[in-house]
Amino acid sequence: MITNNKVKNNLPYRRKRREGRTMADVAFDAQKIAFAPISFQAALALRNLGILQLLNTTPADDKTIAKKLKLSLYAVQTLLENGIALEIVSLENGKYALTKTGWFLLCDPMTRANMDFVQDVCYLGMHSLQDSLTHGKPTGLKVFGKWKTVYEGLSKLPAKNRKSWFTFDHFYSDIAFPEILPIIFEPAPKRVMDIGANTGKWAKKCLDYNKAVTLMLVDLPGQLNMAKKNLKKYGKRAEFYPTNVLDGKAQFPKGADAVLMSQFLDCFDEKQIISILKKVKIAAHQNTRIYILEPLWDRQEYKAATFCLNHTSLYFTNIANGNSKMYSYTQLEHCVKKAGLKVEKVFDQIGRFSYTLLCCKK
Amino acid sequence: MITNNKVKNNLPYRRKRREGRTMADVAFDAQKIAFAPISFQAALALRNLGILQLLNTTPADDKTIAKKLKLSLYAVQTLLENGIALEIVSLENGKYALTKTGWFLLCDPMTRANMDFVQDVCYLGMHSLQDSLTHGKPTGLKVFGKWKTVYEGLSKLPAKNRKSWFTFDHFYSDIAFPEILPIIFEPAPKRVMDIGANTGKWAKKCLDYNKAVTLMLVDLPGQLNMAKKNLKKYGKRAEFYPTNVLDGKAQFPKGADAVLMSQFLDCFDEKQIISILKKVKIAAHQNTRIYILEPLWDRQEYKAATFCLNHTSLYFTNIANGNSKMYSYTQLEHCVKKAGLKVEKVFDQIGRFSYTLLCCKK
Repeated sequence: MITNNKVKNNLPYRRKRREGRTMADVAFDAQKIAFAPISFQAALALRNLGILQLLNTTPADDKTIAKKLKLSLYAVQTLLENGIALEIVSLENGKYALTKTGWFLLCDPMTRANMDFVQDVCYLGMHSLQDSLTHGKPTGLKVFGKWKTVYEGLSKLPAKNRKSWFTFDHFYSDIAFPEILPIIFEPAPKRVMDIGANTGKWAKKCLDYNKAVTLMLVDLPGQLNMAKKNLKKYGKRAEFYPTNVLDGKAQFPKGADAVLMSQFLDCFDEKQIISILKKVKIAAHQNTRIYILEPLWDRQEYKAATFCLNHTSLYFTNIANGNSKMYSYTQLEHCVKKAGLKVEKVFDQIGRFSYTLLCCKK
Repeated sequence: MITNNKVKNNLPYRRKRREGRTMADVAFDAQKIAFAPISFQAALALRNLGILQLLNTTPADDKTIAKKLKLSLYAVQTLLENGIALEIVSLENGKYALTKTGWFLLCDPMTRANMDFVQDVCYLGMHSLQDSLTHGKPTGLKVFGKWKTVYEGLSKLPAKNRKSWFTFDHFYSDIAFPEILPIIFEPAPKRVMDIGANTGKWAKKCLDYNKAVTLMLVDLPGQLNMAKKNLKKYGKRAEFYPTNVLDGKAQFPKGADAVLMSQFLDCFDEKQIISILKKVKIAAHQNTRIYILEPLWDRQEYKAATFCLNHTSLYFTNIANGNSKMYSYTQLEHCVKKAGLKVEKVFDQIGRFSYTLLCCKK
């Protein structure tokens, strides 16, 4: 399979020289991609059937594992042979042991959330990824129902799938909030506008952090009704501006010293982002600081994080809405400029999953 | 995400010491598995939408690619960002180029066959792999119809899916035939029994290779009717013995000097293999050479080949029949011994995909 000379000799010279990998390595990497869905299902079954958990205590042979977990020897052997190929387990003297990767799949809560999200939300729909890309529609969503976006259907997802969606979502939101509060309040803003305020989580943190500040919450009416309930105790310090940000005639209220869009712009395509930022510009005064908080894939310290973000993009393509993604700094800065704003300061490496906070001005 | 100290400190000492990988590497490997189905779909879309082909001629920027292939800039960017994460493409000075891996996905016919097979035969069914393993049934087959095995349903699969099945099958059969003919005919057998003769492909090669030999074809009646037509011109040199090898009362004909089972035993579970081999023993005389030809996952020169075989096992689990697999030398030798036979000689590294030929005797 690998020593295919015809294939080898056709490789363009440029690529032959530039990458220091052997043809066997390349062939292996290609097979890892070719069989990737089966790898995923094998790893998930190793985890969900309790095999990884059992091996986390002590190495064991296949017969012991089968007996303890009431599985057929065939099931255990076939899965563990895949586990070796995937370097999730190792085999020594007839006993299987967990590798570091296997242990990470078992114990790291974010990896667990990612796997459940991929299996329960993305897997079946992703079969039609190519259609999503050519039609600009989240074609994978049809697995669950006839909705235009996943947000419309969230409350109607089967309980297991909904749980996996929310657990995943939990890991990629809120985690940067504590670190950005001092940055945003350092210039002592009197009025802070939260665009995409949702149910008021972030607004609440601001209202608690600074007892003098007034929050201006902007979102769809449905979301703001929830926010109103959640922020009742703050009285007049919380103001509500029901707005459909995609409505061409919609305007944002004026008077904010700081504007925050936290993980908000990744729900829109480039044109929509520019149109939203133009409206922010109109509402801003000369000294208004406009903050954008996003995990940007070209600003990650770890390759694994970039990898997760790029793959999450295709969830937006296939399941969420068909046209948004996780952005790079380059692409987001391009939108900021197109809207007539300028980036004044960039705060990197915020939170466990490196977020970037852009501070922009008119 | 990766600098999770709680997680780090819980790692058992033994594993911490034994593997020389950093926590960041481990986290990355885990994410590669967690998002694997999305990786696969991205790679497939990059190939099928013509992006890899376009980049095979010359590097190009995203706008040029979108224009030439009539795709949205969003689709091209989102896919190519995944392509970078997967090291299928590289980005330099705003232009995307194919990496060796990307080029292999595009040009290697076996990788292409593997990917089409996974997408068109395995992908959707694999969602239920865990059920297959716990029930011992090919639960993934329900995607196509209500059959007990894939073999029953093959002729009824939609054209595209059937084509991908046969193209995959083609790569993993027949390729070792030319090399084993001299080995089997070296001791000048007069009568050769082909168990699992199917439509007579291998028998035909023998009949052409040695003009004096008589072939004894054993298989289900349906298969042998096809074989009879294909081998008509050989007259009495081809004998037909319709047999269900799983029938407890069935017997194999006596008088063969050589018996061949080529990629036949991987369609059965361990107990069935032992029962088949016991019947072979009864039919064999003292000098009968019993040949078993299989690609064995623990006898592969390349890791990629082992990887492919272990993953093909789960196709047997989930789609084909629910209880068979690609075997290791160790497991197959165990069956041979259990049947009261002994391995006399082992021929390794046969064919492009390393096959092993076991020569056994009573």
